[in-house]
Amino acid sequence: MAEQPRYLSGDTAAINDFIDQFDVFLLDCDGVLWSGDHIFENIPETIAFLRSKGKRTIFVTNNSTKSREEYLKKLTSLGIPSDVEDIFGSAYSASIYISRILKPAPNKSKVYVLGEAGIEKELESEGIKFIGGTDPEYRRDITQDDFKGIADGSLLDPEVGIVLAGLDYHVNYLKLAHGMHYLKRGATFLATNIDSTLPMFHNFFLGAGSVTIPLIHATGQQPLALGKPSQAMMDAVEGKFQLDRARTCMIGDRLNTDIKFGIEGKLGGTLHVLTGVDKQEGWQKEDAIAVPKFYADKLSDLLSAKK
Amino acid sequence: MAEQPRYLSGDTAAINDFIDQFDVFLLDCDGVLWSGDHIFENIPETIAFLRSKGKRTIFVTNNSTKSREEYLKKLTSLGIPSDVEDIFGSAYSASIYISRILKPAPNKSKVYVLGEAGIEKELESEGIKFIGGTDPEYRRDITQDDFKGIADGSLLDPEVGIVLAGLDYHVNYLKLAHGMHYLKRGATFLATNIDSTLPMFHNFFLGAGSVTIPLIHATGQQPLALGKPSQAMMDAVEGKFQLDRARTCMIGDRLNTDIKFGIEGKLGGTLHVLTGVDKQEGWQKEDAIAVPKFYADKLSDLLSAKK
Repeated sequence: MAEQPRYLSGDTAAINDFIDQFDVFLLDCDGVLWSGDHIFENIPETIAFLRSKGKRTIFVTNNSTKSREEYLKKLTSLGIPSDVEDIFGSAYSASIYISRILKPAPNKSKVYVLGEAGIEKELESEGIKFIGGTDPEYRRDITQDDFKGIADGSLLDPEVGIVLAGLDYHVNYLKLAHGMHYLKRGATFLATNIDSTLPMFHNFFLGAGSVTIPLIHATGQQPLALGKPSQAMMDAVEGKFQLDRARTCMIGDRLNTDIKFGIEGKLGGTLHVLTGVDKQEGWQKEDAIAVPKFYADKLSDLLSAKK
Repeated sequence: MAEQPRYLSGDTAAINDFIDQFDVFLLDCDGVLWSGDHIFENIPETIAFLRSKGKRTIFVTNNSTKSREEYLKKLTSLGIPSDVEDIFGSAYSASIYISRILKPAPNKSKVYVLGEAGIEKELESEGIKFIGGTDPEYRRDITQDDFKGIADGSLLDPEVGIVLAGLDYHVNYLKLAHGMHYLKRGATFLATNIDSTLPMFHNFFLGAGSVTIPLIHATGQQPLALGKPSQAMMDAVEGKFQLDRARTCMIGDRLNTDIKFGIEGKLGGTLHVLTGVDKQEGWQKEDAIAVPKFYADKLSDLLSAKK
């Protein structure tokens, strides 16, 4: 079994030592700060405390349903005043990847979006054309004419060269059929993230990975995922914030996204909190997908260092 | 490489020999008789020819969107007059399995349906209670109240003990969230079939397997699939029609459902037709999922035996 993590809750000396090791904390949001619209106890105080110690806090989220502006509103309304520059989301990461790395040819430059407004806003901010997404024309039942026009291609936009899939609360057969057929015609397959579940209301719902998987299953193609644990996202975060990886710690609740992201990114540390998806059993086994360096019951346990 | 199939098209002697070996032909429909609403050339003549030679033709389909009665209407309208008893569908197979094998306790006897009217009609015919399906209350966007009530269970029916998933052209997040949470609470997971794609309009769309896979991905649970190649379906077909397996041939277009179904059911033969999903490459490889005994370009090639 791999080296097991150091448990921080209640151990003030260990917490002080932990905080002193880092200048930057990358924080996952769902499952760390909140569950859905329910913020966990003492989270605003914990973020304020870290900032008061001179630490930079950057929110790194795989949730693509909100743009950075919307995330900023949510953080502020929940008592965590921030700046849009403190936020890094998978929709933003995907948009940066398309505009600066993929650089599609003009005649194949449109993106077919399976997802919500967060993706659309970030694509717009990079000047990328798209169809699908929240367009009401795609939020309806599929008809025989749709089947026919998708099958023969007459209803498909020849300029679509990319399919970008993320969490879509309005997923339906019509949207999936469009995505499937753009992929069959050779579109590049990108995903904001591949989280199978999403913590909400103290429970779990279908995450982006579970909404996207019909496209994978029906085409046999795998997307390039641009959220955590993709190192394309880490490279983009590092490029933007000029951080020293050795003095940076990733804090999250998922081993296969957050903790893996920090380990593969060779950060100085990773802190796992037990308020979200994965519990201790996740790393207490031979084939653990990732083992954090530290863990705590909840993020606000760091507050005990104040005493 | 496994023994390769005998090619029948254009070989009148081989076709006569093939037909003489069997009393019963089990026929897949989508991809064999038709693609969507387009019937292939000379199919009614071919079925009539087989019947004129004293053969029994049984239509064995994984498509759960239609009930047997609706299949009968489709067959008749396309020039293949039949009897409802000639039709065996995966929705019927699943209903039989629930009522006669599972026999759920009365307080867990309701089925949550992800699927179309075909499933509902067959459940009704077996006297099984169900929710979901085509109910308009499930054909809408998910709300915050839905998330809350599904998360805390207050919107879930405690009598649901089975989730039955099949092809649903009206799949949406609300329906998937209900299915996911009934499974998390211990419901038995059944699927009418696991076909990843569906042939329609000379192309392919998402099949039942691609509509069901979000439930598998989000829960980590695998359904018991009751359509082909499940031998539960073969046992039910045999029990109903009292057929001699050695004198029975399965005709289909998919190696992983139809042909596998016939081979694992120890039928006398399997005939693969090239009008649907799989082509020769499918069996011309080391790790072929199933190799048919015979193959032909199209079902109507059997008509040359008339000459």
